[in-house]
Amino acid sequence: MAEQPKLLGTLPSPFVHRVIWALKLKAIPYEFIEQDLTNKSPLLLKYNPVHKKVPVFLHGDKPVCESMIIVEYIDEVWPQNPLLPKDPYERAQARFWVKFAEDKGTAVYRMFSSKGEELEKTKKETLEMLQTAEEHGIGEKKFFGGESIGIADIAFGPVVYGLEIIEEAIGEGAVFEAHRFPRLHAWIKNFKQVPVIKENLAERDWMVTLFKNRREALAGSA
Amino acid sequence: MAEQPKLLGTLPSPFVHRVIWALKLKAIPYEFIEQDLTNKSPLLLKYNPVHKKVPVFLHGDKPVCESMIIVEYIDEVWPQNPLLPKDPYERAQARFWVKFAEDKGTAVYRMFSSKGEELEKTKKETLEMLQTAEEHGIGEKKFFGGESIGIADIAFGPVVYGLEIIEEAIGEGAVFEAHRFPRLHAWIKNFKQVPVIKENLAERDWMVTLFKNRREALAGSA
Repeated sequence: MAEQPKLLGTLPSPFVHRVIWALKLKAIPYEFIEQDLTNKSPLLLKYNPVHKKVPVFLHGDKPVCESMIIVEYIDEVWPQNPLLPKDPYERAQARFWVKFAEDKGTAVYRMFSSKGEELEKTKKETLEMLQTAEEHGIGEKKFFGGESIGIADIAFGPVVYGLEIIEEAIGEGAVFEAHRFPRLHAWIKNFKQVPVIKENLAERDWMVTLFKNRREALAGSA
Repeated sequence: MAEQPKLLGTLPSPFVHRVIWALKLKAIPYEFIEQDLTNKSPLLLKYNPVHKKVPVFLHGDKPVCESMIIVEYIDEVWPQNPLLPKDPYERAQARFWVKFAEDKGTAVYRMFSSKGEELEKTKKETLEMLQTAEEHGIGEKKFFGGESIGIADIAFGPVVYGLEIIEEAIGEGAVFEAHRFPRLHAWIKNFKQVPVIKENLAERDWMVTLFKNRREALAGSA
């Protein structure tokens, strides 16, 4: 039997969770190699020399980097429980929302590390991102691709769940309000109820505490 | 015979050229519908309500947006002269460099619209982007994927050719110097010599004049 693939990651990282979800949804056994990002390992530097970031996926010692590229790679190598649709047009739509989550979803994490005027700016960007995803992305569907979880949901998971945690850690009023974003609220609820997601989601209170501490450390170093 | 696909674009746009190159490399007939971005058409707003940008590709009235997603869609629908490799690992590597060009290549265009301290910052980002592409991306290969042109080359085309034009339009010294980036210089030369690229490349002097005028207009409105 071939050696198990390895995942270099950290458990609080919402982006590492994208890969964990893909692997678990497909029931692929893997070895998790915890990384210390304050003291990057030779393994991480060797296998992701460009970005020096987690996640890195090692398949027979061949490294794949960037969470959503790893998810697509996994979907191509292990076709069971497909994450991308078969139809090229639907695939393009799914990739459109993956790219949107990747490009615009960063506002959430920039919000986390900013204050004052910059915080207001990134909050506004986050609201615009949510508005577009609410109106054009999720629409009346259960998941981005329809009735079952797919690649765009995996891309949005760390954006929306990350936002829930970050707005609590910042503690300056809600951004992701249920009355403004009813469809996304229904979506994140559905998403978290998928058994594999539920069983492999970083615990909320632990994450809030972690993000609060990081934010205090950031403020202290400013 | 099915109706020809349509491409909504503008001819100076280097991103629209990505789609033109993909279509021409595969010899797919299409109809080009020129857009006026100073007065966006109902067609553009209807088919790209999220970004309101070109290119938009219409295939039987189904819109696909975002240049590199369009290129991948075209590659899936018309498999002749493939732009992505067959092997999943090589596909992931190609997608890694596409994402890199998309994420880091924006520095070139931010450089174009900035001055003073911001210009220095974006110039530095551009240099770092080039350094990484030189060292880890192109390496000793003729094209990003090896011996023939592929999706990562199409992604980098507007970044490097755009940079050549933009640094001339800015006129404050070269960024893309041959002695610093010999591999990328060899690559862009090879790229421009591919017949389809050569025949479908926006003319350099015309582009420089266009970008100079835009930069003066930007300065005037600052």
